[in-house]
Amino acid sequence: MAVTSHDVARLAGVSQPTVSRALRDQRGVAATTRRRVREAARELGYVPIQAGRSLSTNTSGRVGIVSAELSNPFYPALIEPVHDELAKHAFRTILVTDRGQEPVEIEPLIDGSLDGVILTTTELDSSLPGELKARGLPLVLLNRDTHEPEYDVCVVDNEAGVRELARLLAELGHVRIAAIFGPTSTSTGVERRDGFAAALAELGIPLEPELVYCGPFSPETGYQGFGKLWRQRPTAIFCGNDVIALGARNAAAAQGVIVPGDVTLVGFDNIPMSGWNLFDLTTVGVAIEELARRAVQLLIARMNDPKAPPERVRMKPRLHLRSTHAKPRSSNRSHM
Amino acid sequence: MAVTSHDVARLAGVSQPTVSRALRDQRGVAATTRRRVREAARELGYVPIQAGRSLSTNTSGRVGIVSAELSNPFYPALIEPVHDELAKHAFRTILVTDRGQEPVEIEPLIDGSLDGVILTTTELDSSLPGELKARGLPLVLLNRDTHEPEYDVCVVDNEAGVRELARLLAELGHVRIAAIFGPTSTSTGVERRDGFAAALAELGIPLEPELVYCGPFSPETGYQGFGKLWRQRPTAIFCGNDVIALGARNAAAAQGVIVPGDVTLVGFDNIPMSGWNLFDLTTVGVAIEELARRAVQLLIARMNDPKAPPERVRMKPRLHLRSTHAKPRSSNRSHM
Repeated sequence: MAVTSHDVARLAGVSQPTVSRALRDQRGVAATTRRRVREAARELGYVPIQAGRSLSTNTSGRVGIVSAELSNPFYPALIEPVHDELAKHAFRTILVTDRGQEPVEIEPLIDGSLDGVILTTTELDSSLPGELKARGLPLVLLNRDTHEPEYDVCVVDNEAGVRELARLLAELGHVRIAAIFGPTSTSTGVERRDGFAAALAELGIPLEPELVYCGPFSPETGYQGFGKLWRQRPTAIFCGNDVIALGARNAAAAQGVIVPGDVTLVGFDNIPMSGWNLFDLTTVGVAIEELARRAVQLLIARMNDPKAPPERVRMKPRLHLRSTHAKPRSSNRSHM
Repeated sequence: MAVTSHDVARLAGVSQPTVSRALRDQRGVAATTRRRVREAARELGYVPIQAGRSLSTNTSGRVGIVSAELSNPFYPALIEPVHDELAKHAFRTILVTDRGQEPVEIEPLIDGSLDGVILTTTELDSSLPGELKARGLPLVLLNRDTHEPEYDVCVVDNEAGVRELARLLAELGHVRIAAIFGPTSTSTGVERRDGFAAALAELGIPLEPELVYCGPFSPETGYQGFGKLWRQRPTAIFCGNDVIALGARNAAAAQGVIVPGDVTLVGFDNIPMSGWNLFDLTTVGVAIEELARRAVQLLIARMNDPKAPPERVRMKPRLHLRSTHAKPRSSNRSHM
């Protein structure tokens, strides 16, 4: 006969609801009790079947995180605190890795195995959020937004971030400024591009078309973009994110170009690696843990009240002045 | 009335088995057919319920990857080709992120939602593989092994790799060699530590206890280890993996120590970042895509034949000579 949660409760010496709570890591169960229940469950070979749980509680205790870009260290750095924050609320995390070759498969998200979804690498015109919402699955857009205003969104204030960087470059005296932007299929790519160009225009500095390069958010984009733009001898290069900036930094090293002596480089995101001594990248970014925490709060609020109006959290990034920025060298200008 | 796969078949103009295969991304379905079926399914709001699929085919079409260390770029670099390789075999990938604070939760792995599991960051004495095997779930240990010989394993030949590195250092003339090893709770940590010490001993070079530092596989370990070991003025430092080596490289930069002029640094894994110009790390490693491919092959063979004897794949790593190794400076010796 199949082992039930009642058998586990008997062996562990607790009530059956305590067994359910303990195995779902819900709050209000002491760590020692949880351990005792788990040991009893393992001893008896008890597994709370997911479908069974769904029927009895109408929840799975799991939240999915969808991410297409694990090789960008920003996402592992974001996913880990999301995981920890969800665990505090008794949810387990399932990471659905999309490889970007085709639209995310919707079936694994809506087959009843998840209570909610956090989308981290959504493209501007993605149909996924709409399909999930149409099927009643609570969702939050984290870091990237869409064209539609109907979702809960937790993002970085990209315009504010690029404005800080544009002002920094202007104050240092740069006028020949180049940019390596991210993809126009993403809100982060578009907002940083348009925001940076607008901020420069306000400061009376043009952004010349021949000083602009655009590509995916990858080190390769930074490497190739630097190679192309450096021929035009800009005195500063804005990079659409830190990963692009690190690629550009490597291209500079490969060409013997001194940063910041020959050229200023700035990024966006403040990923942990940007603080490494060898890079020491001047950048802007929010506290990633706080971004994760706010996204989980939005998701839980949405689960509790599916009818509430959409909420938008837009966190203001902070400037991190490190060692890749300097005044332009007059010798560079005479190059022109 | 609920929409069935027969309704989808009718709308898409294909047979019902084709609908099942198309929605599971199985081979033998043309891309255009797959798209037509997906569009029909979306239009009708059809979702192949996971439990339903389990009952009819006894498979879920999903494989879980368990990884605790997404912030080590080795794992994203490994997970992406595992994902792609599984997709070729019509499996979707679910990534179960363990945060290492406590044993991996077994329930999400054995509730019927997965056809098999690939464990990437298993500790030597982990009970997880045994529990999964006892419940009949096909599994493969990828990159890290346990003390038990009963599982299918796909790993790097760590002894061969460290032997190559020890020989390189000896041939360059290093005798005052230090090491920053990984954790002794992992096969990679232990095999690289014991293998490196044994290889040095064979070459007649002692590994002095005061020249050894040990910690988790993280840049912080490398940074702290370098700070501690550099006071003893080694002429070369072996690092237990590339991430440790990058941390050590940063500590050297912070202290104004020239690599390789003042000290040789070598790593292990050949993660993509180790080839970046700013690091250009001399290291050993296997082709990560091939490692991923072999692991998926083992898993599929195990699914097809649960009773077959365990298979062990041990891939020999190759030396990547970049720019962090050199002959010892005689001035360093006079320091002693």
